[in-house]
Amino acid sequence: MRPANVAYPDHLRSEVECYLGTLRFSSESASAGLEEAMRYSLLAGGKRIRPVLVLATSRAIGREPSWGLPLAGAIELIHTYSLIHDDLPAMDDDDLRRGRPTCHRAFGENVAILAGDGLYAEAFRLVLSDQEGDPGAVLAAVRELAAATGVNGMVGGQYLDVAGTAAGGAAGLRRLHELKTGRLIAASVECVLLLAGRDEPDTIRFFNHFASELGVLFQIVDDILDVTGSDEDLGKPRGSDERLGKRTYVTEFGLEGARRRARESHQSARAALEQAVPSGATELEQITDFIATRTH
Amino acid sequence: MRPANVAYPDHLRSEVECYLGTLRFSSESASAGLEEAMRYSLLAGGKRIRPVLVLATSRAIGREPSWGLPLAGAIELIHTYSLIHDDLPAMDDDDLRRGRPTCHRAFGENVAILAGDGLYAEAFRLVLSDQEGDPGAVLAAVRELAAATGVNGMVGGQYLDVAGTAAGGAAGLRRLHELKTGRLIAASVECVLLLAGRDEPDTIRFFNHFASELGVLFQIVDDILDVTGSDEDLGKPRGSDERLGKRTYVTEFGLEGARRRARESHQSARAALEQAVPSGATELEQITDFIATRTH
Repeated sequence: MRPANVAYPDHLRSEVECYLGTLRFSSESASAGLEEAMRYSLLAGGKRIRPVLVLATSRAIGREPSWGLPLAGAIELIHTYSLIHDDLPAMDDDDLRRGRPTCHRAFGENVAILAGDGLYAEAFRLVLSDQEGDPGAVLAAVRELAAATGVNGMVGGQYLDVAGTAAGGAAGLRRLHELKTGRLIAASVECVLLLAGRDEPDTIRFFNHFASELGVLFQIVDDILDVTGSDEDLGKPRGSDERLGKRTYVTEFGLEGARRRARESHQSARAALEQAVPSGATELEQITDFIATRTH
Repeated sequence: MRPANVAYPDHLRSEVECYLGTLRFSSESASAGLEEAMRYSLLAGGKRIRPVLVLATSRAIGREPSWGLPLAGAIELIHTYSLIHDDLPAMDDDDLRRGRPTCHRAFGENVAILAGDGLYAEAFRLVLSDQEGDPGAVLAAVRELAAATGVNGMVGGQYLDVAGTAAGGAAGLRRLHELKTGRLIAASVECVLLLAGRDEPDTIRFFNHFASELGVLFQIVDDILDVTGSDEDLGKPRGSDERLGKRTYVTEFGLEGARRRARESHQSARAALEQAVPSGATELEQITDFIATRTH
């Protein structure tokens, strides 16, 4: 394995941030309040891991990173929508997100529900309107995006989480997170391959392995940080998983067990990446190492 | 204008009902509760006006109605999602829908939010996975579907409704409903033309006029029924618009004024339909007349 590369590809993050800032959704002034709520949550900063993954993957397969911007933007819109709905009083009932009041705290619950709904719709519109690519390839990418965020993806995972119906043991926990967070992270890699029409079985297989392992790694570290992170770093009170009685990698395996699993998952993701891109993919390595070592 | 044709195309409704009944969303047993909530709301009956419009429009342009079933199903999933979210306590706070407890009353608010989110995602998945058609045409139809349901469509209209920010007068009211209900009804016609790759300017223009007028007609009659209908026919308590202080065609123009506008809108829709399909389109005429004369 190449040495850990803890610099984050901030040049890609800037490109994403700039692109997101240019997005406008509403064509009329009467909806300005909805637009404001959507942009409030969308432009709250963060590492932009998913859209940066899109741009880095684009480069790793020989495209200009900017080529994937509409897809990247769509995925960040979807991620933002999921955070807004997850924070709602009927769900996790969170007051803070990235150090600021959550969307429903700032704009009211009804506007927050609609801001989430609107971001999801506009995500599809964005990639279907602005993403370059062969129509069949765009179709395949959007199909994957819908699948990754539906009942057998993000929404299904959130259901397992709130309903507490995931199977017991490590397998059930892994499945919950694979659906809730893993599939959208993986889609940030996989949709790029679909969009580019790449269909060599080995490329697909190694990238998919890398992408799904990255999703697992992200969640284990997230669970560890909910126990060990500072409120300030997290932008919300530490220990919210425990307060909600959620099953996490830490409740399941203890802090040391979770850390060991994070290390294994990190190595496995790096190994898959080297197989996917034998000549090296600096930015994807950086993202992987950042996810493994992040403190918020 | 041809004579009013008050028979509803129940053969198309049966086809829709049967198709919707075959749909399954979740691939795992742990999400069975989510699936149940989605199907509870999806299979609650109703006239299925939007998907029946899809099938009738398919026939009117020379296709088999069943050709449009995945698109029709997707639109009904989206309509169901919008009803679930509109009924939530933070929105209209309705307890009854089609004579049964609303989704959040039956399954809890958190599950209802996710059931709506899930239906929207699965709608895109359905049409992107199962709809026959040239990739470019499918892409155009799905793009229209996203636009019709986003910030400049359904979600934006619901925002104007809950936030009370629509402009005053007839124009503001018309715009609110054009967004909230009109665009999805219109999309049920327009997406069929996109899917079929029909691009003759006159055909597009007449069908679009028909479709948007149908949306207006639907809403005026809906507002009238909220005042004159029986609780039993409506499946929910009459007068809920008034209770919520909503602006309707009745509050704006009085009952007689609203009825006159409904008659004008009906004639205008029928005239546009005759221009769109000079040889006649029995099922589309039936739907138009049903919308004008319905009692629930």
